[in-house]
Amino acid sequence: MTRYAYLGPEGTFTQQALLSWGPASGQPHVPCSSVDAALARLRGGEVDAAIVPIENSVEGGVSATLDALASGDPLVVTGEVLVPITFVLAAPAGIKIEDIRAVGSHSHAWAQVRGWAESTVPQAIYVPTLSTAAAAKDLAEHPADLGYEAAVCAPVAAQTAGLEVLAHDIGDMANAVTRFVVVSRPEWQPTPTGRDKTTVVLFQRTDRAGGLLELLEQFAVRGINMTRLESRPTKESMGSYCFSIDFEGHVQDERVGAALMSLHRVCADMRFLGSYPAASGVEVTIDPITSDGAFIEAREWLTSLRSLGDH
Amino acid sequence: MTRYAYLGPEGTFTQQALLSWGPASGQPHVPCSSVDAALARLRGGEVDAAIVPIENSVEGGVSATLDALASGDPLVVTGEVLVPITFVLAAPAGIKIEDIRAVGSHSHAWAQVRGWAESTVPQAIYVPTLSTAAAAKDLAEHPADLGYEAAVCAPVAAQTAGLEVLAHDIGDMANAVTRFVVVSRPEWQPTPTGRDKTTVVLFQRTDRAGGLLELLEQFAVRGINMTRLESRPTKESMGSYCFSIDFEGHVQDERVGAALMSLHRVCADMRFLGSYPAASGVEVTIDPITSDGAFIEAREWLTSLRSLGDH
Amino acid sequence: MTRYAYLGPEGTFTQQALLSWGPASGQPHVPCSSVDAALARLRGGEVDAAIVPIENSVEGGVSATLDALASGDPLVVTGEVLVPITFVLAAPAGIKIEDIRAVGSHSHAWAQVRGWAESTVPQAIYVPTLSTAAAAKDLAEHPADLGYEAAVCAPVAAQTAGLEVLAHDIGDMANAVTRFVVVSRPEWQPTPTGRDKTTVVLFQRTDRAGGLLELLEQFAVRGINMTRLESRPTKESMGSYCFSIDFEGHVQDERVGAALMSLHRVCADMRFLGSYPAASGVEVTIDPITSDGAFIEAREWLTSLRSLGDH
Amino acid sequence: MTRYAYLGPEGTFTQQALLSWGPASGQPHVPCSSVDAALARLRGGEVDAAIVPIENSVEGGVSATLDALASGDPLVVTGEVLVPITFVLAAPAGIKIEDIRAVGSHSHAWAQVRGWAESTVPQAIYVPTLSTAAAAKDLAEHPADLGYEAAVCAPVAAQTAGLEVLAHDIGDMANAVTRFVVVSRPEWQPTPTGRDKTTVVLFQRTDRAGGLLELLEQFAVRGINMTRLESRPTKESMGSYCFSIDFEGHVQDERVGAALMSLHRVCADMRFLGSYPAASGVEVTIDPITSDGAFIEAREWLTSLRSLGDH
Repeated sequence: MTRYAYLGPEGTFTQQALLSWGPASGQPHVPCSSVDAALARLRGGEVDAAIVPIENSVEGGVSATLDALASGDPLVVTGEVLVPITFVLAAPAGIKIEDIRAVGSHSHAWAQVRGWAESTVPQAIYVPTLSTAAAAKDLAEHPADLGYEAAVCAPVAAQTAGLEVLAHDIGDMANAVTRFVVVSRPEWQPTPTGRDKTTVVLFQRTDRAGGLLELLEQFAVRGINMTRLESRPTKESMGSYCFSIDFEGHVQDERVGAALMSLHRVCADMRFLGSYPAASGVEVTIDPITSDGAFIEAREWLTSLRSLGDH
Repeated sequence: MTRYAYLGPEGTFTQQALLSWGPASGQPHVPCSSVDAALARLRGGEVDAAIVPIENSVEGGVSATLDALASGDPLVVTGEVLVPITFVLAAPAGIKIEDIRAVGSHSHAWAQVRGWAESTVPQAIYVPTLSTAAAAKDLAEHPADLGYEAAVCAPVAAQTAGLEVLAHDIGDMANAVTRFVVVSRPEWQPTPTGRDKTTVVLFQRTDRAGGLLELLEQFAVRGINMTRLESRPTKESMGSYCFSIDFEGHVQDERVGAALMSLHRVCADMRFLGSYPAASGVEVTIDPITSDGAFIEAREWLTSLRSLGDH
Repeated sequence: MTRYAYLGPEGTFTQQALLSWGPASGQPHVPCSSVDAALARLRGGEVDAAIVPIENSVEGGVSATLDALASGDPLVVTGEVLVPITFVLAAPAGIKIEDIRAVGSHSHAWAQVRGWAESTVPQAIYVPTLSTAAAAKDLAEHPADLGYEAAVCAPVAAQTAGLEVLAHDIGDMANAVTRFVVVSRPEWQPTPTGRDKTTVVLFQRTDRAGGLLELLEQFAVRGINMTRLESRPTKESMGSYCFSIDFEGHVQDERVGAALMSLHRVCADMRFLGSYPAASGVEVTIDPITSDGAFIEAREWLTSLRSLGDH
Repeated sequence: MTRYAYLGPEGTFTQQALLSWGPASGQPHVPCSSVDAALARLRGGEVDAAIVPIENSVEGGVSATLDALASGDPLVVTGEVLVPITFVLAAPAGIKIEDIRAVGSHSHAWAQVRGWAESTVPQAIYVPTLSTAAAAKDLAEHPADLGYEAAVCAPVAAQTAGLEVLAHDIGDMANAVTRFVVVSRPEWQPTPTGRDKTTVVLFQRTDRAGGLLELLEQFAVRGINMTRLESRPTKESMGSYCFSIDFEGHVQDERVGAALMSLHRVCADMRFLGSYPAASGVEVTIDPITSDGAFIEAREWLTSLRSLGDH
C-alpha cells in the first residue's frame, strides 16, 4: 500500500494529477492544505508519497515546492505528471455575470485569467483564497458569508461543489499546463528508461569567479540538455541564490554520473532530488561521444595506462 | 512635477520604499491596487513614475513585476531602493495571542513568518489578503466581518490602522530585504555614476544548441558581473523560458555596449530595461582589459588597420 | 612595376609558386638565398613583394617565415598560393642508383622522402644543402667536389640543371602541398571577396589564467573558423609562446573586426599580418547571427538605446 | 643495465643532456646519427632508453622528435632534462675571423647565431651540416675538403675536436635552453612526485565544430595547466593537424585521469606519451576543488546515490 498526500481539497488540479498517476490508483489519497503540509507528512512517515505542483507554463516555478524540496530532510522526485489547465467561472445557481462584484480564487489562477476578467467582468474585484477548489467549495457552502459571488476554478471543482459554470475556458493562454512531481523518501529509485530526467539544487561557491557559467559548463561539456533552471534565494542575503535545475538523463547514466561528480566538486553544496521517467516519454538523444559505451571504453583505457609498474 | 504610482494602500512596504526615495519627496503619490495597475497608469501617462517590488531576499523574484516589465509598451528602470523587511502580528485592542483562530496577510508575507507562526500560534489558520496593509486596514475597520482576528504586516501599517502589536520582528529570517525599482517611460536615462546596474530580458533562439550558456558567455568574456538571473516562462509552452537579468555597469559603458550588441545578435529577442545607480553605492570593479579606454584604443587600432586603400 | 623577391635559386618550389601567381607575370623576379634575405629586401624597399613558403602539409609550419613576419618592421600577407610538391631523385648522366653513396637535399625535402630512401637507397647517407634547387645546381656544376652523387629536388630543378631523373614521385606522402604567401609592405590591402583569410600573431598576457583558451574563444563566440594555429617561442624563455593563427574572413568583415578588437584588449601584444583571398576559393560560410547585417543592426539598436537624454 | 641511445656524435648538446641525466651515469651510451635512428634502436630493443631534443626556447619544437613519437610503435617519456645552450665559433689553429669565407653548422644552431654572424662575419656564407658536433669534427679532420673554414658548435664540441675558439657565447638570445626527453618503451612508469608533467598527442574529430577549443576546455574545467602546445600536420592534407601537448600532473592524479578519459571520448584519436617528473622541480599548484581528495569524495557520493534499490 502506498499512501499519497496531495495538495487538496478535492477538485484541485493537484488531485487531477494524482488521479492520472497510474500507480496511485486504488491507493489511499490524503488531501493536505499546503505543499509544506503534504511534504511534512511524507517526511514524518504518515504517507509514502506526495504529489505537488512544481512548474506552470504561464506562472513559472512554484516557490513553495522548490524551497520545501531544497531544504529539510532529503526527499526525491520519482515521477512527474503534466496536467492541462483550464479554468471556469462558477457561481451558485441564479447568479448572473452582471451581478458579480467580486471573484474568489487562488492568486496563481487569478494571474492566468486576468485578461479575460478585465474584459468580461471589469466591475469585479479580486479576493484571494487558499486554493481554487476552496474558493468553489466555500462559495457553495457559505455563499452569503464570503466577499465574492463567483469563483475561478477547475471544471471538476465547480462540478464537485455543485456550482453552475458561467464561462468556460477563460484562461488567457490556451495550452496552459502545470507540471506535478511525485515525491518519495530517498529509499528507492526509478529504473532508467532511456527517457529520464534528473533534478538537482546547486549552491554556488561565493569565492569563485565563474559562477553560474562554470556550473552550466559541466552539463554542456557532457552533452547534457538542461530543461529547467530556476534561481531561488538562499534566504541568507539579497543576491545570494541557488539554482534548481532539471536535465535529461538518469543518475545511472555514465555522462550524468560524471556531471554530478564534477558539480559536487565545483559547488559549495548540492542536493540530488532524483532521477525519474520524463512525462513526455521522448527518448533522450545522446551524442555517441557521451554514450555509456564511450565512457566505459575511456575508463578501461585509463586503467590500462595506469596499470604499468612504477619505477 | 513627477507623479509616482505605488503598490498601496498606505502602510505597504512599497510605500516605505517610495518615502525613502529622495526624488519623490514633495511629489504626488498615487496608491494602486496591484503592480499591473501601477504600471498601467504609468504606460497610460496618468503618472510619471511607478515604484514596485522586484525581488525579496527570502521569497525571490516578484513574478507580477518581472512579467509586466517584460511585455507591453516599453518601460525602463531608473532607480532602485532596498527596504529592510520586518513584520509584526497586529490585532484590535483586547485580542490576545491565545484568542487568535486565523491570521490574515499577503501570501508572500505569510511565507516569511510561517516558522514563527507554527511555533507561536499553531492553532491559527491562514487567510490570504491582497496586501499586508489591506489585512491591517480591513481588520481595523471591519473586525467582525473577516475570517481572521490578527494581521501580519509592517509596523507602520499596524500604526496607521490603529492596531495593537502583539509580537514584533516575527520574520523567520533576520535581515530580510525587499528590492524595489523606480520605473519610467523610456524618455530619459540616468547619467552613469560608476556604480550602476543594467536590467535586460533575454529570449533564447530555440534553434541554437548553446542555450543559456551562450548568453552568459557574452557577459563573462567582457568581465561583466551578473547580480540576478531569474527565469520566467514565455507563456507559450511548458519549458519555454526567458531570462530576466541584472548585471553591473551602464549602457553607456563600452563593455556593456559590446555585450548588449552581441546579445542582440545571439538572442531571438531582447528587451532593454534600463541602466540606473545601484542602491549599494559600491563602485563597479573593472578589469583593465575591459575598461572604456581599452575598448576605445582597440577601436582606433581597428580603424587604422581598415584605413589602407584597396587594391 | 612590381618587383618580386623569392626564395631561389631557379628551380625551387618557391619559384614555381611565383610562376603560378598571376599578378607576377611579366614582372621582375629577384631570387634570394633565404626567407630572411627576401623579406629584408622587401622591408628595405629593393622589391615590392616577396613570396615565401609558410606551411607544408607534411612538414608543418616554416619557422623562418613565421618568425620573420612576427618581428621586425610590419609586413602583410596579400595573397597565397598552393603548390603540389613532387620530388625526383636526380643525378648527372651515367650515375646509377646502386652507385649512390650520398644524397644531397634541403632537410625539409629529405624529411619527406626518408621512407622511400630507406627502402630504395639504404646505403646512402644524407648531406644537407641550402635548398633543393641548390643541391641539383651544384651537382650539375661541380659533381666531383661535393660529398654526394644524387640530389632530391623538384622535377623542374633537375631539368634546369640538366640532370637525369633516376626516380619520379618519391615523396612518402602523395598529395603533399606547400603553401606560399605573397608579402607586401602595409601600404594597401586586398579588397574583400567573401572567400578571404586573415593572419595574426597573438602574444598572451602572462598574468592571465585563461591563456590560449581565452584567445580562441574570441573567434568561437563570433563563429569564426580557425584554419591554422602554430605556436612559436617568443625566444624570451622556455615555455613562453606566441601563436600564429589563420582564420576565415577579412578585416573589413564586421565579425572579424569585432574579434580583432577583443583580441587587442585581451592579448599582451598582437600583430595583424593581413587579409587576403584564400587560394581554395571556397566561399566562407557565415552564421546569420554573425553576418555584417546582424552586427550593423545591433550597433544601430545600441545607438538608439544610448541616445536618450540624461537626467 | 640500461643502454642509452642519443643524437650523436660526441660533443652534441644531446650528449650534454645525457651526461647530466643521473640515472645514465655508468651505463652504455650509444650515439646515433638522427632522432629517427635513436628511436628506431629503442623500438627495436637494441637500447633501453633514448634521449632526444624536443623543444628549444629560441627555435621551438623539434619536428623530427614530435613526429617520431606521434606515430609508430608506442613509446613513452620517462624524464626530461634542460640544457642551457651556448655557441662558440671554432676553427683549426691559424684561422682568423677575417679569413672566414663560410661557416658550417646545423641549421637550428645557425638560426640562433644569425644576428651575431651578420654583424661579425658578414662576408661568410652558411653551409648546412648534420649536427653542430659533426661540423666541428669534420673541420678538424678534413679542413681542406669542406666548403667552410669555421664551425658554430657547443664549447665541448670544439674542445673534443681540438679546434680553437675564435668567439664565445655568440647566441643571439642569452638564456637559450633546449629541452630533452628521456624515452622508453611503455613497460614501466615513473612514480608520481607532485611535480610531474604529462605529454599527449591529440587528433581532432573532423566532424565536430568545437575543434581545438573543445579539447583545451577539458584541461581548463579541471584546473590543469598546459605548458606546451605544438600543432603538427597529420600529413594527410593541408590544414589537417594534430596537437602535441604537455601539461602539469601525472596520469595517476585524479584530475589528470578525468581529463584523459574525456579527451579519449572527444578526440578522434589520442596517444599517451607518458608522465614524468618535471625538470623544473616546482610543485604543481592544485585548486582544492580538483585535488585527489575532492575527486574521491565526489565518487563516493555518486556511489551512494546510485546504490538505492530500483523499483
